[in-house]
Amino acid sequence: MTQPFMFERPLGLRDTLPEAQRSIARLKSIFRQELQRWGYDFIKTPALEYAETIGRASAIEDSQLFKFLDAEGHPVVLRPDMTTPIARIAASSLRKQPLPLRLAYTAALYRSQRKEGGHPSEFEQAGAELIGDGTPYADVEVISLMITLLEKTGLRSIRLAVGHVGFVNAFFYDIVKDKETVKQLRNLLYNKNDVGFHEYVASLRLSNHSADRLNTFIDSRRMDNEKTLDFLKDLTSGSSIPVHSYYHHIVELIQLLKIDHLEGNIDLDITLMPHLSYYTGFVFQGFGGGLGFPVASGGRYDDLLAQFHRPCPATGFGIRLDRLMSAAGADPVEQRKKAIIYDRENAGKAMQFAAREREKGQAVVLQHADGIDDIEAFSQQFETIKRFLKSEETETE
Amino acid sequence: MTQPFMFERPLGLRDTLPEAQRSIARLKSIFRQELQRWGYDFIKTPALEYAETIGRASAIEDSQLFKFLDAEGHPVVLRPDMTTPIARIAASSLRKQPLPLRLAYTAALYRSQRKEGGHPSEFEQAGAELIGDGTPYADVEVISLMITLLEKTGLRSIRLAVGHVGFVNAFFYDIVKDKETVKQLRNLLYNKNDVGFHEYVASLRLSNHSADRLNTFIDSRRMDNEKTLDFLKDLTSGSSIPVHSYYHHIVELIQLLKIDHLEGNIDLDITLMPHLSYYTGFVFQGFGGGLGFPVASGGRYDDLLAQFHRPCPATGFGIRLDRLMSAAGADPVEQRKKAIIYDRENAGKAMQFAAREREKGQAVVLQHADGIDDIEAFSQQFETIKRFLKSEETETE
Repeated sequence: MTQPFMFERPLGLRDTLPEAQRSIARLKSIFRQELQRWGYDFIKTPALEYAETIGRASAIEDSQLFKFLDAEGHPVVLRPDMTTPIARIAASSLRKQPLPLRLAYTAALYRSQRKEGGHPSEFEQAGAELIGDGTPYADVEVISLMITLLEKTGLRSIRLAVGHVGFVNAFFYDIVKDKETVKQLRNLLYNKNDVGFHEYVASLRLSNHSADRLNTFIDSRRMDNEKTLDFLKDLTSGSSIPVHSYYHHIVELIQLLKIDHLEGNIDLDITLMPHLSYYTGFVFQGFGGGLGFPVASGGRYDDLLAQFHRPCPATGFGIRLDRLMSAAGADPVEQRKKAIIYDRENAGKAMQFAAREREKGQAVVLQHADGIDDIEAFSQQFETIKRFLKSEETETE
Repeated sequence: MTQPFMFERPLGLRDTLPEAQRSIARLKSIFRQELQRWGYDFIKTPALEYAETIGRASAIEDSQLFKFLDAEGHPVVLRPDMTTPIARIAASSLRKQPLPLRLAYTAALYRSQRKEGGHPSEFEQAGAELIGDGTPYADVEVISLMITLLEKTGLRSIRLAVGHVGFVNAFFYDIVKDKETVKQLRNLLYNKNDVGFHEYVASLRLSNHSADRLNTFIDSRRMDNEKTLDFLKDLTSGSSIPVHSYYHHIVELIQLLKIDHLEGNIDLDITLMPHLSYYTGFVFQGFGGGLGFPVASGGRYDDLLAQFHRPCPATGFGIRLDRLMSAAGADPVEQRKKAIIYDRENAGKAMQFAAREREKGQAVVLQHADGIDDIEAFSQQFETIKRFLKSEETETE
């Protein structure tokens, strides 16, 4: 019988073996405890959602969706993100709950991959959403919560890049006065294509002053926070009211982060542009462990809930567990197991002994001698082996 | 814009809101701890598997599979069970690990439903698989483990129905000497269609003696264990060697369960026939809380691993979390949250206070006054509210 895929998994899909699974369980347990302490309630949504709503609102490219027809012929998707399903719940099952809502999850997300060795098609994410609070205090809360969660896992060198999509949109629009051009500029930011950005700006036939403002804007990336604020102050002099207003949000956020003793972790990067298109305000990405890609990301999405007829501001973030495991480095969770090998004669004694040890919290494998294939290989897995065999009773350490 | 499915989920799919999610988290945590204490290692497999292997080997009806083509055009399924993916791993990534393997999981499983108000299409299951041990001690271990897990959740009136597929097959074959007829008889058992069973037996034109043996066989259902064993002894006198050998397995299992002080929970029911076709030996179903349907089920599947080229005996079980929650009844996990309401002036003080309380394990919502929509409704969610507002500082209990 030909079974070409006997041991294969579909593209981008992986098994998680015991050692990695212990690390994941540890992370989830840390997240669960800390999120509860911050007053966040865990919810769960189905893996499958209707493509018409969740598939579209999640703003993931169609080619990345696992999309098919359900038994009734409706297009469904494997959920590509959790923010949109949570928005759906906030606007339906939880619509009578007073705002703000604080909701949390750990869930697998699905994004179809087209090439071998690329990103995973299924990955676990832990996250939090603070729905119904439009103040900068809410932004500080989610930033502070995300940093705390990363710290609790033991991740080192935690840095948070913080930008503001609303500021960027308004600032660009002020200068170029055209939404499509703004979108182009944003795409170049998203791709971190500085050369392309400058070329595109040159192609726009703006005044020297306007072109300079756009060009220096993206050159601000490497400044420290104080310098960035000074730079933005200069840059926005003479700008429209929205730009000014966003500027003051940024100043206020940095001040609040100082009060919360978090400013030292923050890199204000006004050029930061996220993947997902539903963000409207502050956006941020979390880095750590010397890794070049973000382990976590989030931001404000004040327009998403309106799509589900409960218009209200919202902000939140997600932490990628697979990336966090790479960033945190090898941190195997120790597991000391004891084995008891017994025979028929000593079954009762061995079972009682195992029960007592387990009650004390000890991990005990209770194994009848007849069930062991290779006693040598079997024994090597354990720190301690206790034998309940006929008259023999020895303990090997 | 017409969005007919705005708040809908595909057929059979559900959201889990905070209160239920707390109960599920509690169950999972109990299972995780206890399974680790029994030396079981947790693993995780992808939600999507190739239909050619996992879809087929899992023996779930095609109409119950969520099946579609992946980006490469291969048929894939959402995993309908976990035993088969674990068999795949045991025979591939873990093929160098010595037997027996003890593996555990909690995972969502997917079975497509065709009608509204029916079974869920997605449900969570916790389970354990003991791979590579063909002795009755392994059967006792998984039965004992399953009972212990159910007990630890606080489920009351736990009963385990235990049967033996191998015995039934051999006993039927001994009499009817035809595999297709055996299959028919098994199907009638599975559907608990006693009338149909007797009618079918009558249609077979057997000797009176043979027909009697088949008919009394299913009438044995309501006997206590000792009576069942006596009955089986009579029934199998003059049977073939396999039937005798299976009979002695059953006697041995009951004796071992006595040694493990579990026999009081066990209802030997030789007519028990499970849904999944890969079982070969002992099979069992767990009941509790007065519910008419099983919350857990399992059994021995000695031929499944051979399909993945690592032939070895195996046994295991799964516990349905949704059913367990129904059976365990309303057992809301209490959650006492404190709220801190603060203003800009007191931001630092409020943040420090929240941090200290959280460090002590207290769940604290830290909320700026400006972010609250309806202070009355908001406040009702909390047992304690502490205000850090200008000069005011009061605590409401």
